[in-house]
Amino acid sequence: MNAIINDIEIIKAKTTKINDVDFDNLKFGHVFSDHMLECNYKDGKWHAPKVVPYHPITLDPSAKIFHYGQSVFEGMKAYKDADKNVWLFRPLDNFKRLNISSKRLAIPELPENYFMDGLKALLEVDKDWIPTNEGSSLYIRPFIFASGNGFHASPADEYKFIICTAPSGAYFSGELRVLIEEKYSRSANGGVGFAKAGGNYAGQFYPTQLAIEKGYQQVIWTDDNTHEYIEEAGAMNIFVRINDTLITGPTSDRILDGITRKSIIELAKAEGIPVEVRKISVSEVVEAAKNGSLKEMFGAGTAAVISPIAGFGYKDVDYELPKLDDTYASFLKKRITDIQTNKVEDPFGWRFEVK
Amino acid sequence: MNAIINDIEIIKAKTTKINDVDFDNLKFGHVFSDHMLECNYKDGKWHAPKVVPYHPITLDPSAKIFHYGQSVFEGMKAYKDADKNVWLFRPLDNFKRLNISSKRLAIPELPENYFMDGLKALLEVDKDWIPTNEGSSLYIRPFIFASGNGFHASPADEYKFIICTAPSGAYFSGELRVLIEEKYSRSANGGVGFAKAGGNYAGQFYPTQLAIEKGYQQVIWTDDNTHEYIEEAGAMNIFVRINDTLITGPTSDRILDGITRKSIIELAKAEGIPVEVRKISVSEVVEAAKNGSLKEMFGAGTAAVISPIAGFGYKDVDYELPKLDDTYASFLKKRITDIQTNKVEDPFGWRFEVK
Repeated sequence: MNAIINDIEIIKAKTTKINDVDFDNLKFGHVFSDHMLECNYKDGKWHAPKVVPYHPITLDPSAKIFHYGQSVFEGMKAYKDADKNVWLFRPLDNFKRLNISSKRLAIPELPENYFMDGLKALLEVDKDWIPTNEGSSLYIRPFIFASGNGFHASPADEYKFIICTAPSGAYFSGELRVLIEEKYSRSANGGVGFAKAGGNYAGQFYPTQLAIEKGYQQVIWTDDNTHEYIEEAGAMNIFVRINDTLITGPTSDRILDGITRKSIIELAKAEGIPVEVRKISVSEVVEAAKNGSLKEMFGAGTAAVISPIAGFGYKDVDYELPKLDDTYASFLKKRITDIQTNKVEDPFGWRFEVK
Repeated sequence: MNAIINDIEIIKAKTTKINDVDFDNLKFGHVFSDHMLECNYKDGKWHAPKVVPYHPITLDPSAKIFHYGQSVFEGMKAYKDADKNVWLFRPLDNFKRLNISSKRLAIPELPENYFMDGLKALLEVDKDWIPTNEGSSLYIRPFIFASGNGFHASPADEYKFIICTAPSGAYFSGELRVLIEEKYSRSANGGVGFAKAGGNYAGQFYPTQLAIEKGYQQVIWTDDNTHEYIEEAGAMNIFVRINDTLITGPTSDRILDGITRKSIIELAKAEGIPVEVRKISVSEVVEAAKNGSLKEMFGAGTAAVISPIAGFGYKDVDYELPKLDDTYASFLKKRITDIQTNKVEDPFGWRFEVK
C-alpha cells in the first residue's frame, strides 16, 4: 500500500541507489536521488502531484518542449543541521517566482499546496540524500515544461511539473575570471530575462564558450542596447564593491529577481554595510579598477551562493581584483550559509523547517 | 531485412496509420506520418541517421532540453505535382540555417549529407503522406535538442536530430488582424532572434495571448529599445506595401533570415515590383494608413507562405487595410506556390526534386 504524506501520495522505489554515491566527492547536479515529484496539467487543470520513483520521461516527438522552448525552472537547496533537522531557504519565494516565470511563458500557474506539500513530501521520502558535509547540500530543481503535442506555434495544452533533487558539491571550483560582454546579450527590454525560462540559458552558452576560449569562466552581461551597464554574471546576479559601498543593479524585465541577491541586500544593510541598488556602468567599474577603489566583485545565486570574481576582461585588457583578507563576499556568504544550515539565529525569518 | 536508401538505413513501421487520416480536412501539424528520421550526437560526433517508425522519445528528467531550452528547428514543405513527382523548396537553405541556429545555441553542427540524404530517404518512405489537395502539403519539421543530462547550466554532451512530417492544411484561417507591440519584445541586439531557437517562440506566447484577448490574432514585433520600428509579424517576416513599393526590414541579429522572405524579394524584383529593404518605422506605417498610401501588409513564412493582414491596431486605434482586387500578396503567393508545386517554370533554381 502506498503511503500518504501531507496529502501527497507516495509510490516508493523498490531499491535505493544511495549506496553507489560518494558523498565526499559530489559534483554539482550530477547524481539524482531515488524519487521525484510529478504533477500533470491536463484538461485545463493541474492534477494532484505524486512522489514517484525517479524515472525517464516519455514524450511524443511533437511535444512542444522540443520545438518552442516553453519551460521554466527554479533552483533551491535543502540542508541538514547537526540535529538532522531539514531546512529550506525562503521556499515560498521560489514558488512565487516560478509562477511569475510561468505567466510570462504562458504556462498555467501552479497551486501553492501542490508545490509546497509536494516538495515537503519528496524531501521527507529522500531525506537520507541530503548531504551533511561542509559546502554540500541537496540541490532541488523544480521545473515545468510543455508536454502537449503539435507543430502549431502556440501554448501547449498539457504540461509537466517535476521536482528532482541532486546531492551536490560546489558549483564553481577555482578562481573565477569573467569577461564583460561587448557584443552578445542575454535579454531584451520587454523580453523574458526576468523569468527563469529555459531559453534564457541556452542563449548564454555560445558567448560563454567564446569567453572560455579566451581564458575566462563566465560572461558579465551588459544591456543589449548600449552595452554600457552591467546586468548579470553568467547565470547569477552581480555585486560590485567600490570602496566600502556594495552596489548591485536594480531588477527589471531583463534582470532576474534573485533570492540570494535580495537576501544579500537585506543582510548587508542589517550589518551596517552601505548598499546601493542602482545601474552600474562598465566605465565606472573599469575606472574603479584603475584607481584602486574597486575592492570586490561577486556573483550571487542559489547554486553557488556567492562566487568571488578574481578578475575581469574588457576591451582586450585584463583587470585584477585585489586579494583582501576580509571580504564582504566571504563575510556575507558565511552569514547566509550559517542561517541556511541553522548554525545561527535567523532574524529575517528566511529559514524554513521541513517537518 | 532493412532497406537502404541513399546510404540511410530504413526500419519500416509494421502498420500504417494513413487510412485513419482525412486528407480533405487537414489541420496544421496535427497528425504525423508513419516514420521519422533519427540521428544522435554522442561521444563528440553525429552518428549515421536512420529512418525509423514514428515513436515516443524517452529522456532522463535531467535532460538539458527540459531545463535550458537548448533547441533549434526548421520548417519546410514537400509537394507532389500532377505526375506524382515530389518537390522541396530551397532545402539546402534550411540546412544551412539550421547550422547557423545551432552554432548560436552551442549545438554541434550537422553534416550536410545526414540532413539531405536523411530527408530524401524519409520522404521516399512516406511519399504517400504528401497531400495533393490545393493548399495542402507535407509539413516537414527538422529539429535538434539537448538530450544530454545534468543540472549544470552548460551545453549538453548529447543531442538528438529528428525530422518528423505532418500532412497539413492552412496555418491560418479567416482574416488576420495584428497588434503593433508597444511593450513586449521578441529579441535583443546580440541575442538569438535571428536563430530558429525554441525559446524565441515560447517568449511570444504570452504577448500574443494578450493580443488575442483584444481581438487580434498576432503581434507585430517592434525593436526592444524604442518600439519605433516593425520587425516581424508573429513567427513570420513582415512586408508592407506603400503605394506601389514593397518594403521589408533588413535581416539582423534580431530578425530571422526567412527563406520565403528572400524568395519574395527576389521574385518581386524579377517581376518589376519596386522593392526596398530598409527599416520600417511604426509612424510611417500609421501615417500611410491614414493618408491611404498603405495598400497592403502581409506576413511571410514557410507555414503560411504569405498571410495578408486585414488590419492592425496601434495605441488603441484600429486601422483597416483597403480591400484591393489585385494584391501583391495574392500575385506573389500564386507565383511562389506555382513554382513550389511544379506548375510553372522555375527560373530561380529554387525547386528541388526528391528522387
